[in-house]
Amino acid sequence: MLTYSFTDIGSDCLYQHLYKCIKNDIIQQILCPGEKLPSKRTFAKNLGISIITVENAYAQLLAEGYIYSIPKKGFFVSDIKTVDSKKSSILSSENVQLSSGVSHYLADFTSNQTNSDNFPFSIWAKLIRRILNDYQQELVTNPPCGGILELRKAIAKHLREFRNIYVEPEQIIIGAGTEYLYGLLIQLLGFDKRYAVEDPGYNKIYRIYQKHNVACDLISMDSYGINVDELEQRKPDIIHISPSHHFPTGIVMPISRRYELLAWASKADSRYIIEDDYDIEFRMTGKPVPAMQNIDVLEKVIYINTFTKTLASTVRISYMVLPKHLANKFYKELSFYSCTVSNFEQYTLAKFIEEGYFEKHINRMRTYYHSKRDLLLHALRNSRLAPYVKIMEEDAGLHFIINLKTDLSDQDFCLLAEQNGIRIRALSSFYAQPPEDVEHFFVINYSSLPEDSIKPAIDIIYNIITQV
Amino acid sequence: MLTYSFTDIGSDCLYQHLYKCIKNDIIQQILCPGEKLPSKRTFAKNLGISIITVENAYAQLLAEGYIYSIPKKGFFVSDIKTVDSKKSSILSSENVQLSSGVSHYLADFTSNQTNSDNFPFSIWAKLIRRILNDYQQELVTNPPCGGILELRKAIAKHLREFRNIYVEPEQIIIGAGTEYLYGLLIQLLGFDKRYAVEDPGYNKIYRIYQKHNVACDLISMDSYGINVDELEQRKPDIIHISPSHHFPTGIVMPISRRYELLAWASKADSRYIIEDDYDIEFRMTGKPVPAMQNIDVLEKVIYINTFTKTLASTVRISYMVLPKHLANKFYKELSFYSCTVSNFEQYTLAKFIEEGYFEKHINRMRTYYHSKRDLLLHALRNSRLAPYVKIMEEDAGLHFIINLKTDLSDQDFCLLAEQNGIRIRALSSFYAQPPEDVEHFFVINYSSLPEDSIKPAIDIIYNIITQV
Repeated sequence: MLTYSFTDIGSDCLYQHLYKCIKNDIIQQILCPGEKLPSKRTFAKNLGISIITVENAYAQLLAEGYIYSIPKKGFFVSDIKTVDSKKSSILSSENVQLSSGVSHYLADFTSNQTNSDNFPFSIWAKLIRRILNDYQQELVTNPPCGGILELRKAIAKHLREFRNIYVEPEQIIIGAGTEYLYGLLIQLLGFDKRYAVEDPGYNKIYRIYQKHNVACDLISMDSYGINVDELEQRKPDIIHISPSHHFPTGIVMPISRRYELLAWASKADSRYIIEDDYDIEFRMTGKPVPAMQNIDVLEKVIYINTFTKTLASTVRISYMVLPKHLANKFYKELSFYSCTVSNFEQYTLAKFIEEGYFEKHINRMRTYYHSKRDLLLHALRNSRLAPYVKIMEEDAGLHFIINLKTDLSDQDFCLLAEQNGIRIRALSSFYAQPPEDVEHFFVINYSSLPEDSIKPAIDIIYNIITQV
Repeated sequence: MLTYSFTDIGSDCLYQHLYKCIKNDIIQQILCPGEKLPSKRTFAKNLGISIITVENAYAQLLAEGYIYSIPKKGFFVSDIKTVDSKKSSILSSENVQLSSGVSHYLADFTSNQTNSDNFPFSIWAKLIRRILNDYQQELVTNPPCGGILELRKAIAKHLREFRNIYVEPEQIIIGAGTEYLYGLLIQLLGFDKRYAVEDPGYNKIYRIYQKHNVACDLISMDSYGINVDELEQRKPDIIHISPSHHFPTGIVMPISRRYELLAWASKADSRYIIEDDYDIEFRMTGKPVPAMQNIDVLEKVIYINTFTKTLASTVRISYMVLPKHLANKFYKELSFYSCTVSNFEQYTLAKFIEEGYFEKHINRMRTYYHSKRDLLLHALRNSRLAPYVKIMEEDAGLHFIINLKTDLSDQDFCLLAEQNGIRIRALSSFYAQPPEDVEHFFVINYSSLPEDSIKPAIDIIYNIITQV
């Protein structure tokens, strides 16, 4: 009968040692396929160990497929060639697809990625170095659940100066991306509430509400923004909008519609407006419109913004400004959550804002995007494509819309573009149910477009729509 | 009638300019309380602007309380002393409480904070510096939704070497803290599923399920871990357990119970086990027990671990290992989410693990905690308190339990301790319905206890229980 020594088992426990010995013998074919293993009882007696130990070792071998059992007959050695091939097929990685963020397009009009030349690496490095030296205790001290106070103060100051929004730092909640904050808001406002988003809009926001299993309406837009009559009909509690620069239509909601929405919100306690101010820093021209947060005296507006647009999409820091009573509710009900942004980045960003680097960076980026937009618009207007293209809503943010003269369906055009190295999305694809009159409109996000791709990309588009 | 110039309005739009002019006149008392403002129509005609513009300016003044309206009579200037005092009372910060993480206790036996001496600042700084130099394009390139591949490969290697767990990097999903990952798991597994947690246990985990509005059972424990009979009775789909070192009881689930649970999970497709392996790196003595992930061949175990315990609670990086089929489901349904940890920290941690610093750090920390635990145990056993204290479950992780001989209720003892600078939690407070026989047991988390607090803290506890 099989005998193993238990004198030198190291840190293993008994059953593990036994398991390893048997497994080893199976792998080295000392125990051959089909061979019967000793019964638990005799084996235990023979080795001077308990039956439980043998049982556990057999159970693990069984679980891993090294042995198999036949009821009332006992345990037998498996053919490990089968075990191995079964294992490798389970472990083959081809099923698990990595959705990588690396773009291999000549021109990607859907990307929001930052060009590395535009990230302030040297300043960031300088600030991190200083913080790692001077803030060691602070860096490992748990922050309040809403984020470190220095950063929230810096953001409050920035909001005051840049956006004329006056809030207490304590109303600001820091989180790892707006997507995370939306989930937190659902926990704060309630899973029983009815939410509503703009149609067309960022599909992602709608999907987040769906994935959280809350009722979510798609509300249509007119030329002023979200449709108030439809709100009255569908009766959502919370609307999630981007009044300052709607994506993808580019609509800037006029003040009159803002007041209508505030009036709508005032009619029930459960009603709130989530104001997503996502790329306000890059409004190019046109009059600045005050944030809804600014004109809200009834504590109905939750303001959300992010640094992923202004710094880099890979720096995951966003924030929301809660009305006082919701901030209190947040501290009461959700303060058990740890802040999702690590202290290291919170302190670095706080210094970055406090010391004026953020403002300089925004100004630099605004100039950069401005000139890139002008380059692109100029190239479009002076290309062979010019007679086929109409440019719309060009005065704000990091995207605009073009209307192409083509007989191709939106789907066919995008597919042909993709095959020729250009990634572009049709306006219609942002609608749940696209109306007929939005065909042949395309969203041009130019923020990560390399300058030397502009001309070839325009030529490709020209070829696609003229050669069909 | 009021007249304002519109020639030099800067970047304001018309209504904003008008709003500011009127507001200014009210503040400077050029317009006095009670004074009637021109009707919209006449004012518009007089200024040569549209009625809408006046309407918008009035609406904003109204919203901010600078004017008030009397139906059918018109708009009147408010008494701004009232406006100001009303404003300041809304904005007073006393309602919003900051829950700060700074501890002012002599000894805090509930804290998980890292001492700054223990964080590897100089190595971290060196790695960040290198990454900021060499990885600029990678730093701003959107990672795959599960996190950057380098980090996931480094974690897979660590799991293999340290925990004998073999997984593909693609099965690993990085997130900003385990709390965030729990929420993500609910979205993956379903809001319609029934969840279960251990009782006693981390109250926070139970609260997270509650806050996500999913059914969640509290399942009692026996001396082997979560009670299988009760699982069969209550019929949850997903159980969330920490088999390798249960908090707070310290129970290490034996292999037999692990197989029972795997057998339980195998009985229905919807059943899964979330294995929270949170402080396995600091198991002090005793035999290592294989992770359940290790012996799971039916893809039923979701393994979760975190770097917040090993590095610092303020570094928000955790991960989960999904079984293949769940990884596929994740990529299909949830890949629209951006990874919540910024690239900067992901790359730094990847290098930290790859280059062997993490292993060294764990070893150093294990020695450090080992000696601190020994100091504390030695001090307890050689103090005046010794006859009144029994030490239990001292062989694993960063906490143990003491049983105090006292007539004080748990609540009274903790209160008296708190008043004397000691924060301590009773074992009973971790139960939903504490059984009677767990009175006078207290959880001692010593990870952030300053060494020079040990003796005075013991003296204080001695005084509390002997002087009543």
